[in-house]
Amino acid sequence: MTFQEKLRKASLRADSLVCVGLDTDPSKLPRHLSDAHDAVLRFNTALIESTSDLVCAYKPNSAFYEALGGHGIDMLVESCAAVPLDVPVILDVKRGDIGSTADRYASYAYDIVNADAVTINPYMGFDAVKPFLREGKCVFVLCLTSNPSADDFQFLATPGGPMFEVVARMASEWSKEGEIGIVAGATRPEYLGRIRDIAGDLPFLVPGVGAQGGSAADVIQECGGEAGGTVINSSRGVIYAYGGEDFAEAARTKLKALRDTINSYRSEKN
Amino acid sequence: MTFQEKLRKASLRADSLVCVGLDTDPSKLPRHLSDAHDAVLRFNTALIESTSDLVCAYKPNSAFYEALGGHGIDMLVESCAAVPLDVPVILDVKRGDIGSTADRYASYAYDIVNADAVTINPYMGFDAVKPFLREGKCVFVLCLTSNPSADDFQFLATPGGPMFEVVARMASEWSKEGEIGIVAGATRPEYLGRIRDIAGDLPFLVPGVGAQGGSAADVIQECGGEAGGTVINSSRGVIYAYGGEDFAEAARTKLKALRDTINSYRSEKN
Repeated sequence: MTFQEKLRKASLRADSLVCVGLDTDPSKLPRHLSDAHDAVLRFNTALIESTSDLVCAYKPNSAFYEALGGHGIDMLVESCAAVPLDVPVILDVKRGDIGSTADRYASYAYDIVNADAVTINPYMGFDAVKPFLREGKCVFVLCLTSNPSADDFQFLATPGGPMFEVVARMASEWSKEGEIGIVAGATRPEYLGRIRDIAGDLPFLVPGVGAQGGSAADVIQECGGEAGGTVINSSRGVIYAYGGEDFAEAARTKLKALRDTINSYRSEKN
Repeated sequence: MTFQEKLRKASLRADSLVCVGLDTDPSKLPRHLSDAHDAVLRFNTALIESTSDLVCAYKPNSAFYEALGGHGIDMLVESCAAVPLDVPVILDVKRGDIGSTADRYASYAYDIVNADAVTINPYMGFDAVKPFLREGKCVFVLCLTSNPSADDFQFLATPGGPMFEVVARMASEWSKEGEIGIVAGATRPEYLGRIRDIAGDLPFLVPGVGAQGGSAADVIQECGGEAGGTVINSSRGVIYAYGGEDFAEAARTKLKALRDTINSYRSEKN
């Protein structure tokens, strides 16, 4: 089964375009957990158990686990093992390096963490992408990011249009050699439609809704609302819904509301 | 003490521009070590003990440790702890992410691994760099990389010249807010001088000499041979010099020869 098929099935089953970002920060955990050695793992497994029927994917952010050292990586691996087998895991790593190094990063993402997909930085070109193209796996290429200083380089004028358009076109080329997706931030909705035109049916991973200020309505309008075509990530807005013992239930309530709001925009568009 | 001062002192003391890359791959270790659970750590510590008076820095490549999971990260941390305090450690991570995530990656590099410097991908702009600017630490920004597909984006024409020149200029701007260095590959010597012109006295980290085909003579010619100004990395060419029990001594011999060759080019230039 291709990654996109797995994503589409999970999205249809949950009737959801929402991916929950597991940016689990020990300093933000509910008080009753915060002293435990494996607090991050306990938080994640409770969250996953409470939400997995409402998401199309999970997106753990590698940085938050690396910051805890080897024990953090172990907790990342165990957290991903708690995700039901039919729900895809997109490991947010934003790596990008020469072939022999990229090969080691691919081993981290796929053999250690057992992720279905990764995020990759395109600056070093196709060498940095190719080692991640395995059967059933997908590489989401950073195209237009949701942060303010995305302007520094992503909007530079080139003969082929602004830099991010060149990346979108190149990513589309690369998709002939394996599964490729696009990372495009919700904070710049005016460019999302243009990227969708260039990249056709590639799956879009869209961060920046919620805490960063992007609008889900704009995302659906510009990227479309197809299962397996658009993935809207929410991290802080869902996982830190409540700081008490009922945190997982509160996260479920927040997630359900977000899913339903997004689905109302999908209905309007159809 | 600034990072560049620490680098300069180490470089003068060892009379060396060579940085040894610790890209330690368990499948390439000497046979007598390869079955040990902590083979990577034992290899690194022997190597460091045998070479630390001949290098200006070490550059562990995070990918090779991540590929071994949590235990790999623990061995990376312990390897770096084996480096003498007056020899800088440049952690090759090539990260690049929004502020809140970059902050976690900085914690990984500086608080967990205890590195003096990192390599960072500029595609997301200054947001991805700023959290790494701490006192005594340095951010080496990827400018022109040594891999074949560097062409995909780094040579794109923009109103400010090819993309890599815009990155060099931006990096130079950023250096007003903290210590910045430049990553520029030895496989494209014809552009190194141009980057040096733009980036002035910023320290250059130059990979690609040896296994990747770059010439040390060209690097010295174009980047200069100042202690603290130019760092030439060699990984595979030094660390896998010999597959027997005397591997650390063999690495020392290879390293000494490389250092001396580079120093002969430095004398010629002066």
